[in-house]
Amino acid sequence: MRAVQVVGYHEPMRLTEVPVPEATGPHDVVVKIGGAGVCRTDIHILEGQWAEKSGVALPYTIGHENAGWVHAVGSAVTNVSEGDKVIVHPLATCGLCRACRYGDDVHCEQSLFPGIDTAGGYADYLKTSARSVVRIDDSLEPSDVAALADAGLTAYHAAAKAARRLRPGDKCVVIGAGGLGHIGIQVLKAISAAELVVLDRNPDAVKLATDIGADHGVVADGTHVEQVQELTGGHGAEAVIDFVGEGGATSDGVRMLRRAGDYHVVGYGENIDVPTIDIISAEINFIGNLVGSYNDLCELMVLAAQGKVRLHTSKYPLERFQDALDDLDAGRIRGRAILTP
Amino acid sequence: MRAVQVVGYHEPMRLTEVPVPEATGPHDVVVKIGGAGVCRTDIHILEGQWAEKSGVALPYTIGHENAGWVHAVGSAVTNVSEGDKVIVHPLATCGLCRACRYGDDVHCEQSLFPGIDTAGGYADYLKTSARSVVRIDDSLEPSDVAALADAGLTAYHAAAKAARRLRPGDKCVVIGAGGLGHIGIQVLKAISAAELVVLDRNPDAVKLATDIGADHGVVADGTHVEQVQELTGGHGAEAVIDFVGEGGATSDGVRMLRRAGDYHVVGYGENIDVPTIDIISAEINFIGNLVGSYNDLCELMVLAAQGKVRLHTSKYPLERFQDALDDLDAGRIRGRAILTP
Amino acid sequence: MRAVQVVGYHEPMRLTEVPVPEATGPHDVVVKIGGAGVCRTDIHILEGQWAEKSGVALPYTIGHENAGWVHAVGSAVTNVSEGDKVIVHPLATCGLCRACRYGDDVHCEQSLFPGIDTAGGYADYLKTSARSVVRIDDSLEPSDVAALADAGLTAYHAAAKAARRLRPGDKCVVIGAGGLGHIGIQVLKAISAAELVVLDRNPDAVKLATDIGADHGVVADGTHVEQVQELTGGHGAEAVIDFVGEGGATSDGVRMLRRAGDYHVVGYGENIDVPTIDIISAEINFIGNLVGSYNDLCELMVLAAQGKVRLHTSKYPLERFQDALDDLDAGRIRGRAILTP
Amino acid sequence: MRAVQVVGYHEPMRLTEVPVPEATGPHDVVVKIGGAGVCRTDIHILEGQWAEKSGVALPYTIGHENAGWVHAVGSAVTNVSEGDKVIVHPLATCGLCRACRYGDDVHCEQSLFPGIDTAGGYADYLKTSARSVVRIDDSLEPSDVAALADAGLTAYHAAAKAARRLRPGDKCVVIGAGGLGHIGIQVLKAISAAELVVLDRNPDAVKLATDIGADHGVVADGTHVEQVQELTGGHGAEAVIDFVGEGGATSDGVRMLRRAGDYHVVGYGENIDVPTIDIISAEINFIGNLVGSYNDLCELMVLAAQGKVRLHTSKYPLERFQDALDDLDAGRIRGRAILTP
Repeated sequence: MRAVQVVGYHEPMRLTEVPVPEATGPHDVVVKIGGAGVCRTDIHILEGQWAEKSGVALPYTIGHENAGWVHAVGSAVTNVSEGDKVIVHPLATCGLCRACRYGDDVHCEQSLFPGIDTAGGYADYLKTSARSVVRIDDSLEPSDVAALADAGLTAYHAAAKAARRLRPGDKCVVIGAGGLGHIGIQVLKAISAAELVVLDRNPDAVKLATDIGADHGVVADGTHVEQVQELTGGHGAEAVIDFVGEGGATSDGVRMLRRAGDYHVVGYGENIDVPTIDIISAEINFIGNLVGSYNDLCELMVLAAQGKVRLHTSKYPLERFQDALDDLDAGRIRGRAILTP
Repeated sequence: MRAVQVVGYHEPMRLTEVPVPEATGPHDVVVKIGGAGVCRTDIHILEGQWAEKSGVALPYTIGHENAGWVHAVGSAVTNVSEGDKVIVHPLATCGLCRACRYGDDVHCEQSLFPGIDTAGGYADYLKTSARSVVRIDDSLEPSDVAALADAGLTAYHAAAKAARRLRPGDKCVVIGAGGLGHIGIQVLKAISAAELVVLDRNPDAVKLATDIGADHGVVADGTHVEQVQELTGGHGAEAVIDFVGEGGATSDGVRMLRRAGDYHVVGYGENIDVPTIDIISAEINFIGNLVGSYNDLCELMVLAAQGKVRLHTSKYPLERFQDALDDLDAGRIRGRAILTP
Repeated sequence: MRAVQVVGYHEPMRLTEVPVPEATGPHDVVVKIGGAGVCRTDIHILEGQWAEKSGVALPYTIGHENAGWVHAVGSAVTNVSEGDKVIVHPLATCGLCRACRYGDDVHCEQSLFPGIDTAGGYADYLKTSARSVVRIDDSLEPSDVAALADAGLTAYHAAAKAARRLRPGDKCVVIGAGGLGHIGIQVLKAISAAELVVLDRNPDAVKLATDIGADHGVVADGTHVEQVQELTGGHGAEAVIDFVGEGGATSDGVRMLRRAGDYHVVGYGENIDVPTIDIISAEINFIGNLVGSYNDLCELMVLAAQGKVRLHTSKYPLERFQDALDDLDAGRIRGRAILTP
Repeated sequence: MRAVQVVGYHEPMRLTEVPVPEATGPHDVVVKIGGAGVCRTDIHILEGQWAEKSGVALPYTIGHENAGWVHAVGSAVTNVSEGDKVIVHPLATCGLCRACRYGDDVHCEQSLFPGIDTAGGYADYLKTSARSVVRIDDSLEPSDVAALADAGLTAYHAAAKAARRLRPGDKCVVIGAGGLGHIGIQVLKAISAAELVVLDRNPDAVKLATDIGADHGVVADGTHVEQVQELTGGHGAEAVIDFVGEGGATSDGVRMLRRAGDYHVVGYGENIDVPTIDIISAEINFIGNLVGSYNDLCELMVLAAQGKVRLHTSKYPLERFQDALDDLDAGRIRGRAILTP
């Protein structure tokens, strides 16, 4: 089959022929790829940023946002059958550790991460685990939802966690109306009645945010902290979800938070650097957010099937992977780039 | 009546005569002081550290950890009567704002803080509100429990919040076995079966911690992070409660935290300064902790009446307030200093 | 002022003149009535069903669903001022007991219930407490929202409690699409993405339910349990909210519940009569639901102001109270009857 | 190997020779039995009470409370190795359904129940799943803890669920101080500071309950509801945990419950038969409790290793199974009967 592989850091990736993976282990599931999301992390991988952390041996196939159809299953697989249309959770987890047994499978003590530390989905087929595949509704297409597998799932996880504490009348600030923020806004509208204030440097992104349901849009122009304070009656918001995490977002964001509020860290880059006296006197919390669990992905697929979460995609055939990466790097993609068979 | 007042910053406080406060407002409660805790904050007040923040006009009476007997009540007071033995919650809250109505009264939108921004309890009598007085068990003495009103209540609040997520087998690191840590350890033993690892620079404090129930004591000698890692099977602890918050405690503390763990900020001084990438990749949380609510204080008084929380005190008659402050400043107090009538 | 009073059980109520109430207590609030909901409970009062329970002395003024404008306030009232547009929470609570201090004010140890055990709102003015008045948005009219004060608040409380456990993809069965069910459906759509199955004996009510957002409507025609089983994939629903509670609703309802599901009891009349073996082997819960708290009412008013919860009303001038009661008794009211000044 | 089998209902069980089970499936684990609890359910099985429900074909080996040492593992087992000392969760679950993935594995959609619907542990060896074995502390012996696998686990599950809502000062009534109640009391003391009132018809059981930490013991002699009311200040208890569920326990128990309280159903026999008006006006809840999850069992084993939960056992060699059953039936067992190799 075809596969796009990293053959060396800082070298172009290469489309090559490799054997189709087989379902040799009892829980193995081989998926015929219908769509593979092209993510900024893929560019970082090529730059070698993940080399040490992942410990992966080159060459290997990248791609960690995958969806398609079940092609083959191992002997102990009972939850999917050949032909099922599925999205693939980014982690293949053990199912036996305490975290897995609590549903916090992203904290599995011995998970694999296809596309990062083992072969991923820039290919015709991907090997994953029965614990990673979620059947999707007939109305959904793999190439439309693939990017929800990681970027979308992260946004869902943070938004759903925030929503659990948000009551009607509470305010929620969303920092960053890009890919993740876009999903986060749709999720918050679907499962809460909180008043959403969305912040972005890009006026077009702010416009798009209000089009899909944000109650207030604020362009980050230097007066944005004051604008948010005004929109929240001078109290700040019960929750801030920060999809940016760099360029000063966190210090601005903390100033938008109400006493006893939750600051959800999702985007990353800079440090959370806040005096402990401020944390205790306002009794605020900083809540970390990793990618969502398997159950989170099931729930996100429900919202997608209900039409409540939609993602704009630009599709490229697999062999044009370099164009997709170049367009992403140059900021020419609206929504997410997807590789298709 | 007698009252100890701040007459000028960086000047000695002065014992003087002032009128006994009267229960003129419908919810006023005047308490005859049986014990007033002497707190490091009182020293900071005299140094002017709170001058701007509190906006209090001099001279005024300090003392924010109070207990005694109800002396007089306003026309609308129904929950206590003259002669009742009570401990006084440090805040006098409005009862009408949303925070008060949710039980989060420490986030009241218009509270008073006797001893900080209005007359406190270094005196024969204190005026507070019906919303601030908690009746205590017959077996308890005001001078024994007064210091639980603020320092103890803060420790209770953080420990009880942490305990809500701790299951048998979970590890909890307590940083700092001083006054607050001492209470925190007793609370955790009373309401959870988590395994407690207590850390302090002072070997005597560590010894005391294990005497009152800590499962493991670690002297902070430079190898303490490694020791805690070993005690937690290399995973770190599900919760860290940091009663220190300075001198590098927070950076050490974060290294002791397990994936998905909660870092409870209680002590203050330095900054929480942690890369967002670390917060999200381990999905850890930083949880602020202010003093406890009125209901928290009721619960702490139950533990005190059950003999599960005890505090060592050194008592001084009110007129010896300067000795108490000097002994505190010089580190000569074991437990807490209390002024008595 | 004018007031409609119960002068004897099983006798017609009488419109009479009584003195305007005065704000004599420190927390008293006198409200000029803009709308008073006419409730089936009012008919039951006249039948003497509440005589013993309430212990009220005749004659007295009924009406427990009230909204209007603040007319006068007691000396200690800080949260509203004369002229404020308000809805009135049905209970006047103490604010000092443990339940009040946790926000569960409906479990106040010494509350009053105007219209049930003291003078209510079938009148020009009503005396209540500062703790009972919620300011409403400029866009809302007292006569439009009055019926949300009790019937609507009960539905909100149950729906919001259920929603806290409902995730996207979960099913929720609503039994009864009358007044309360109507509000409950709108609330569930506003704050959750659960799939709603609504059940009623009346095909018109079922039609209305799907018009306002229910995902599935089922006419209770004897095959309804099977229909619900089919709609829930044979598993039953994660939550059933029973706004009926009589005529066999509960035994049918339990058969629609999934393992580990929650059965919310709201309507009343018959007994919950279920073998303990069934409760434990399916590990199901029966959750009682009383009227909502003050904070619940604030949240419901947010949803009303956002246009997410609407109620159809039929208005009658106060002096036509008998027509309103007669129309209600005869089933001639669509939505709720409201008395206006 | 030896195995005690049901060969016909209402016939004596028979000790026979059967092949040692093999770890043929990838997740199979074969355990060498160190202790098998003798449970009243075993008597009910022989009486045919479970015949239809379980659908099991005779002859088969009973015994559903098992502990021992790992004897052999399937190809995909990673969490235990040969020789590990383990207790066996009563259910073998799929790990793939939504319930399993949330940690609610007792609601698994396709579980097996060794000893009930497939071969159990009255034998030298038992086949179970990797998902069912919990390694136990070196200090614990399989024959001492075996009975915690089902009876103890049920008690832990209910007590831990109740404890999550119990604060210091809250009252908890435990109905029934037999085997389950005994464990429940020890668990509640270990993880909460609630005040425990324990009720039993047997004065000796009540005495034992107070010996192991119950704050109050009440003999159910007809005045018990009044006694509990008095012990709870006339309010009733925040939680009732009913380990009896027959003989009028539930109607008595409901009368001991405070407004907004939780009634935990664990024991079974009679119906919960309560007017809906009482459920809503006091806003009480009935909470079903099945056996605990795998994670619950891990936590219970921590408490056992800490010495906080202890169980009295009477041991019988496997071949004396009939004596054990006879003694149980005749009420001659104190604590639990255990079959040993």
